[in-house]
Amino acid sequence: MADAAAHQHEKTRWPKDAVGNRMTANVPVARAEDTINEVRTTLRKAQEFETINYVYVLDGHEKLIGILSIKDIFRQPERRKVGEVCKKTSLVTIHPEADQERAAYLALKNNLKALPVVDRDHHFLGVLPSDVILHILYKEAHEDALHRIGIHHRGVHHERALDNVLDIPLFQSIEHRVPWLGLGLLGGLFVAQIVGAFGRTLEQNLLLAGYIPLIIYMSGAVGMQTATFVVRDLAIGEGIPWRRYFGKQCLATLFIALLFGVGLFLLTWVLHRRLDVAAVLSFSLIAAVSSSIVSGFFLPFLFQKHGVDPANATGPMGTIVQDVLGIVIYFSIASLLL
Amino acid sequence: MADAAAHQHEKTRWPKDAVGNRMTANVPVARAEDTINEVRTTLRKAQEFETINYVYVLDGHEKLIGILSIKDIFRQPERRKVGEVCKKTSLVTIHPEADQERAAYLALKNNLKALPVVDRDHHFLGVLPSDVILHILYKEAHEDALHRIGIHHRGVHHERALDNVLDIPLFQSIEHRVPWLGLGLLGGLFVAQIVGAFGRTLEQNLLLAGYIPLIIYMSGAVGMQTATFVVRDLAIGEGIPWRRYFGKQCLATLFIALLFGVGLFLLTWVLHRRLDVAAVLSFSLIAAVSSSIVSGFFLPFLFQKHGVDPANATGPMGTIVQDVLGIVIYFSIASLLL
Repeated sequence: MADAAAHQHEKTRWPKDAVGNRMTANVPVARAEDTINEVRTTLRKAQEFETINYVYVLDGHEKLIGILSIKDIFRQPERRKVGEVCKKTSLVTIHPEADQERAAYLALKNNLKALPVVDRDHHFLGVLPSDVILHILYKEAHEDALHRIGIHHRGVHHERALDNVLDIPLFQSIEHRVPWLGLGLLGGLFVAQIVGAFGRTLEQNLLLAGYIPLIIYMSGAVGMQTATFVVRDLAIGEGIPWRRYFGKQCLATLFIALLFGVGLFLLTWVLHRRLDVAAVLSFSLIAAVSSSIVSGFFLPFLFQKHGVDPANATGPMGTIVQDVLGIVIYFSIASLLL
Repeated sequence: MADAAAHQHEKTRWPKDAVGNRMTANVPVARAEDTINEVRTTLRKAQEFETINYVYVLDGHEKLIGILSIKDIFRQPERRKVGEVCKKTSLVTIHPEADQERAAYLALKNNLKALPVVDRDHHFLGVLPSDVILHILYKEAHEDALHRIGIHHRGVHHERALDNVLDIPLFQSIEHRVPWLGLGLLGGLFVAQIVGAFGRTLEQNLLLAGYIPLIIYMSGAVGMQTATFVVRDLAIGEGIPWRRYFGKQCLATLFIALLFGVGLFLLTWVLHRRLDVAAVLSFSLIAAVSSSIVSGFFLPFLFQKHGVDPANATGPMGTIVQDVLGIVIYFSIASLLL
């Protein structure tokens, strides 16, 4: 039996959300030439391991060469060699510098109870146990949900993530909610000045005012749909052909834009009997919805590139960017065509 | 050793998202008077169990009286009685008719790798294994994220939940996105008619048009914040004093409404030098944000009561309801005061 801890690198070496920070080396390991009986003895005598779902089989260089399930330890004959019965092919492993969220998806996809961590040379470093994987998945989902409503929780809130709202003091919960709402207020003021700049167009076609929410809502909603998928796929990431992905999202967005553009044209034509207004509304919707590829696709990538959680794109930032874009497009088209 | 399967009730008896549908009875059980050695023999001979993290200890009536960890099975002396070493107090269990999401939170909160399922009389029915708990948590988080963007996935999409967008045919992904966007379009048309009904007020105060996005955005954002917490807490639920919870959310909403109402008053007064307009905007914002308790609190409860997933309140339905409310409030106040 080898001491996996010997290979555990220092905690500080990994990036903030890396797998390396959450793994434990406190798991049973064995050599290929050990017998099942020797493994049983170790499990019996050893200190309290973090998890014993699997025994990890290492070679002389501490490289992971196989995995032995606890079920096999019970079932296999005492004298059988570990190397003969352990699973050696298609082992699912993860690197310590990988993102925790990716590890959770990997465990999920492969129905694994624990995930072994190895370095680039396949040296065994430790394991992500099932309860840690569960916590990672919950934390990521919870963080994404909070980002969506513009709450970026720090220390306190984070640890209390599982507690209900009643446990957080009133003013602390207000304090969490206010900053991004404040940005929303400023964004709204900015939009109001843009609309104000198109005062003449609006004055001559008062009808346009009522359709502001529709244009904003539709482009924001389509952008949010795209962003939700892009954010998730950026997290699972690795190996996604992003050009093709981008092409597909553009096609879907364009198709949706055209579909609803034509629909709005027919509905508003019937409603107002003005061909010019119906055309402006229809063109604006098509352009605004098409522009949602900005908040839906480019914004998450921009955030990712600058080390900001891409999930922010599904929150107030994304909405504000898309609102401003939608309004500018709407009134530009209106003042050109009317 | 007893046969836990004997107590497994029929699958069809539980509600759709109930724990009973996901549990397995295929786990090792023991009697209090069994020795550790007997348990080891069973583990060795028995069919392939789904999970052997724990051995469940039952009395003569098949009631769960204790839990033995796999670590204890290795560590304890051969002749020791199971009843002497198993954990008997503060066992965390769940009922088969409970919601799966609640089970996942329970496992999360107690750092459990598997969750035993018992009926009202404490008869042992089975276990939720760690990989199932992981899948439940992922499914719920994923569903909530999809509800937020108005996608209600049925069969196909659900099984592919882990695949990336590229694997889903273009028209299928558009088909998923269109229905709720269509509802949004109709909602937007409805809002436009409301604004149209206030044509006179708008004509005399063109300035108001530009602030439509601000009022809508702010009341929608605050409502969404509240709804996100309420939806989660409804899921974890049980034992939350909802009256007090409601009071706290109302207080927080009111405080936020007043804070930004005053802020908007000052900013627009400076910007436009018109006291009446600043007052209307400020009152409207306060009233609209206060009204967000409707989409944030009442809507999730309404959905829950009628068997609809409360997470819908954080999606297009919530936004549309809150948009209409905000617009009606805004122009009602404007036509009254100007």
